[in-house]
Amino acid sequence: MQIAMIDDKIIPFEKLEPAYLDRGLFFGDGVYEVIRSYNGKIFALAEHLQRFADSLAAIEITNVDIENIRSAILKAFDTAEIPNAKIYFHVTRGSAPRNHVCDPDLKPNFYLTITELEDDSQTMQNGIAVSTYPDLRWKRCDIKSLNLLPNVLARLDAQKKDCDEAIFVDESGKITEGAGSAFFAIIDGQLQTSPLTENILPSITRKYVIKAGENIGLKIVEKSLTPQEAAAADELFIAVTTKDIVPVVKFDGTTIGDGKPGKFTKLLAEQFRLFTT
Amino acid sequence: MQIAMIDDKIIPFEKLEPAYLDRGLFFGDGVYEVIRSYNGKIFALAEHLQRFADSLAAIEITNVDIENIRSAILKAFDTAEIPNAKIYFHVTRGSAPRNHVCDPDLKPNFYLTITELEDDSQTMQNGIAVSTYPDLRWKRCDIKSLNLLPNVLARLDAQKKDCDEAIFVDESGKITEGAGSAFFAIIDGQLQTSPLTENILPSITRKYVIKAGENIGLKIVEKSLTPQEAAAADELFIAVTTKDIVPVVKFDGTTIGDGKPGKFTKLLAEQFRLFTT
Repeated sequence: MQIAMIDDKIIPFEKLEPAYLDRGLFFGDGVYEVIRSYNGKIFALAEHLQRFADSLAAIEITNVDIENIRSAILKAFDTAEIPNAKIYFHVTRGSAPRNHVCDPDLKPNFYLTITELEDDSQTMQNGIAVSTYPDLRWKRCDIKSLNLLPNVLARLDAQKKDCDEAIFVDESGKITEGAGSAFFAIIDGQLQTSPLTENILPSITRKYVIKAGENIGLKIVEKSLTPQEAAAADELFIAVTTKDIVPVVKFDGTTIGDGKPGKFTKLLAEQFRLFTT
Repeated sequence: MQIAMIDDKIIPFEKLEPAYLDRGLFFGDGVYEVIRSYNGKIFALAEHLQRFADSLAAIEITNVDIENIRSAILKAFDTAEIPNAKIYFHVTRGSAPRNHVCDPDLKPNFYLTITELEDDSQTMQNGIAVSTYPDLRWKRCDIKSLNLLPNVLARLDAQKKDCDEAIFVDESGKITEGAGSAFFAIIDGQLQTSPLTENILPSITRKYVIKAGENIGLKIVEKSLTPQEAAAADELFIAVTTKDIVPVVKFDGTTIGDGKPGKFTKLLAEQFRLFTT
């Protein structure tokens, strides 16, 4: 008899629920998005849906209607009634007995959660410490896929070093991005970040940070930094959907500036806030 | 109210079952093994358990007792009573609300299935066609992790080309291994395969193939092949736990030898069979 065992419980294989046959679980065969709302208003929904559609297309999940995803998000958001919400959702290729290939008509699985965003005012005021970690990720980090083990390993390493984020450094010694964020420096009054390549997520928050930079008259430099350049920068910060701009005050143990969030970082955060209200 | 949505069903977030909070699903934060039995006897169990322990240690899942895994496998195998079984199992870091980092004491999830192996005598007799695909995987393919999206994409590409396996080619133009197999060539009476590095799974079947090669007096060459060298080889085959040695008769459209399984491949398969009886 074909069987399955979940922890110590044996059941017939045929009785397995779809959640236990999810290709997301077997292969990370799916893509995701994280969106947030500010005071009851979802931010940049259209852009997140466009990126989600791009991710789905890139891994050839072709039978998902983005309009249905949009409706599901709006319905769930209305139901949750959380003004400052974190909206996570993913689609996987579907549930089937484990095999790399599958029926092209397999029904994709949709999963969404809406949770309360944590209060991060302390983080914003004090800034965070970050540490570097080798960029072990696959070669298509422009796809927001569920293959995130290298990101987990990087964050576990950062945690051990009392850091809040890990910054990936590639084989050529250049910073790509954070394990869950885009990475920025202010050097001589210029705003610098890695250019978008297949090794980097086309971060929507990054796009708005650049717009904010232009609005306050900063020159934008899209050029990868080395850890040495980052440690010597005037200011550093990360950008992430759930928190927008987060000042970085320590980089691999080196204090940045005077160890407090920098003036341009604060100006950018203020500018960013204008987009979200 | 914090909520979750599974397909079109909304439920309170707190009511989510552990399967929907599995870090295996969110991050591919787990490792797996595939073992098989021949006529009621599990093959190379100790070696698979050792590799599984290595994978767990590499991703820092430290609270799993391998003896418990062994007992679970044996218990399940006894229950299933399938002589030629495919035993798949994985451990993930556990279930918790999505966050890259987690409580180090989180209870890992164990999942196992035992299914009947398909009859592959036709495949063995006729051989298979393979096609190349860029090796997009992460930089620690020596860890048997659940981050397998590049493998899925490679297999989907192979399927479109009417091929049964995809062979990864890295950025330097060298073959690493198959999407789910080790890759071998016979050239001038020598058995050639990629050396074991962090880019390659330390395949247990590979080890036994090499032993089989030594037993029949073949010189073993651990050196990566280019696709051109593979296409010009006298014989090609892949090695995979569930099927051991599978002849390759077509490589990116080029017929290998006379288009039938080669003589050394057959000799190696016979030698391999001696290990399993």
